[in-house]
Amino acid sequence: MKKIINKPENIIPELVEGFVSANSRYFEKVLGVNGILYKGRRKDKVTLVIGGGSGHEPIYSGFIGRGLGDASVAGNIFASPDPGAISETAKAAHAGHGILFVYGNYAGDNLNFDMAEEILQDDGVKAAHVRINDDCVSAPVERINDRRGIAGGVLMVRLAGAACDLGLSLEDTKKQVEHVADNLRTIGIAVSPGQLPGLDKPTFELGDDEIEFGMGLHGEPGIKRDKMRPADELVDVMFSHIVKDMPLKAGEEVCVLVNGLGATTMLELSIAYRRVKQLLDKAGVLVYDADVNSYATSQSMGGFSISILKLDEQIKKLYDNPCFCPFYAKEGKA
Amino acid sequence: MKKIINKPENIIPELVEGFVSANSRYFEKVLGVNGILYKGRRKDKVTLVIGGGSGHEPIYSGFIGRGLGDASVAGNIFASPDPGAISETAKAAHAGHGILFVYGNYAGDNLNFDMAEEILQDDGVKAAHVRINDDCVSAPVERINDRRGIAGGVLMVRLAGAACDLGLSLEDTKKQVEHVADNLRTIGIAVSPGQLPGLDKPTFELGDDEIEFGMGLHGEPGIKRDKMRPADELVDVMFSHIVKDMPLKAGEEVCVLVNGLGATTMLELSIAYRRVKQLLDKAGVLVYDADVNSYATSQSMGGFSISILKLDEQIKKLYDNPCFCPFYAKEGKA
Repeated sequence: MKKIINKPENIIPELVEGFVSANSRYFEKVLGVNGILYKGRRKDKVTLVIGGGSGHEPIYSGFIGRGLGDASVAGNIFASPDPGAISETAKAAHAGHGILFVYGNYAGDNLNFDMAEEILQDDGVKAAHVRINDDCVSAPVERINDRRGIAGGVLMVRLAGAACDLGLSLEDTKKQVEHVADNLRTIGIAVSPGQLPGLDKPTFELGDDEIEFGMGLHGEPGIKRDKMRPADELVDVMFSHIVKDMPLKAGEEVCVLVNGLGATTMLELSIAYRRVKQLLDKAGVLVYDADVNSYATSQSMGGFSISILKLDEQIKKLYDNPCFCPFYAKEGKA
Repeated sequence: MKKIINKPENIIPELVEGFVSANSRYFEKVLGVNGILYKGRRKDKVTLVIGGGSGHEPIYSGFIGRGLGDASVAGNIFASPDPGAISETAKAAHAGHGILFVYGNYAGDNLNFDMAEEILQDDGVKAAHVRINDDCVSAPVERINDRRGIAGGVLMVRLAGAACDLGLSLEDTKKQVEHVADNLRTIGIAVSPGQLPGLDKPTFELGDDEIEFGMGLHGEPGIKRDKMRPADELVDVMFSHIVKDMPLKAGEEVCVLVNGLGATTMLELSIAYRRVKQLLDKAGVLVYDADVNSYATSQSMGGFSISILKLDEQIKKLYDNPCFCPFYAKEGKA
């Protein structure tokens, strides 16, 4: 697949330049590193800093704004930003009430964000983190802390932004966001691989009639290679994995995100959501809100994920907080 | 490319079902036809009805909301909705102040929307239309009324929504929207074809190192088949076509939309926008606002378009009107 780029070595600086420039009403660049600040960030609350490897846009770089992240840090394609970039961005955004980092649970990110926290702590800045680990088939429930973060990160950032907006302490904000993570599950499938810019080969190989079930957001292998099936059958199997991991009872309320991985049309995502809704209806589970879009992408990978967030009073209050950035705007309360 | 669908004959009803269901806070279906109403539509203004062939989501079906369309009508994939569906949807949305239709300038749409207008007029409902014809290489300037409507439709719907919001008469609203069309130009390129759901072949053929320059939103041929080049070179040629057609003077203000066609990443779109901004800076043209996203898509086609809207006081006032739908939310004034 042909990629619309210039020199491969300039991809990230050119991405950040274009991204900040196009959204200059809201975004400004951190001097010297690939960090982006939300211009309108509040000064009276914990500062939310998000980030990770590039190539999944609009998340994370684009998810800064009112009620969302205060700053984001962009690594190279599918690679964690370095500790210096993270700590510099956090310092540029910090308003004196501590930093909460929210990022995907990957070895490289964990290492680099941990080092950034140490740098900040040495400089007298309080910092804490919550790792996104919504991919419910990436490790068994006994090793839940080994699970990857995938498209549920969209909801994690939204609700972390809301928790920060409440003006609580860093410790209490972190607890609220951990509670969200406990109630969020995602599963994805790939029908075609992505293609990294500057490389000639796809991110993985897949036969004409094959799908990868439970793959990660970078093309990591899933739990099985399966045959392509009609949309409803795919959704049925995906849904069954989620409710096995996080049982849902009749009368409970959920929010649903059907996220496209890049090359999958909104037509297909809508057809898939339609089936999720049918299954939830059948189980007597109430849909408080739903969202169908492509927020967490993987370099034009074909496929999608289903995220389910189980609501209680605390989570619903966070969900009802309005938020706005150029790529994600929600009015909050219905 | 594998498509996540069920039976091909059910694609459109399942799309509409999923689309309305996922966005049920805002959307409701018109009984009996594939029309969608914005639940919060105002009753004290001209009613804006948009629509066209499906398969370009989120436009048009998704572009109804506050300050946008009041209703949309979905045809089959890449095929105009029929006159009955259009007139039924318009009647369901009508608030007594007339209907303004805004849709892409294609033979099928023109015929069917014209017939719908006749049906409405026979029923005593005043109706008028403005056709989107922003694709500046699809016909020479002497035949400007033959030009196709492509991604500039996003801005047309936004500004038509704003014009309706002003509460003017149908005639005056139409004039405002025509003035917007006069100041809007788009050019697109394709780097890879789309793939229709239910069909096994791509929407057109393209060599590994080829691009189609100036192609339409359905894969219609452009003005030339060219070799793939670096992003900056592609943008330079595209930009030169726009300014040849709509000259821009130093000191003038514009809004820019870089729209992805489905399979093109935000990374690539941002790199392309970066170059557009450099060219505008060089020409002394001021960017009032910019937007980089994939709103008008073509079944996972690879490629993008650049739209430029030239501002004057009247157009800027429309642009500054805030708008919100689940897929497009703008705060208005900077």
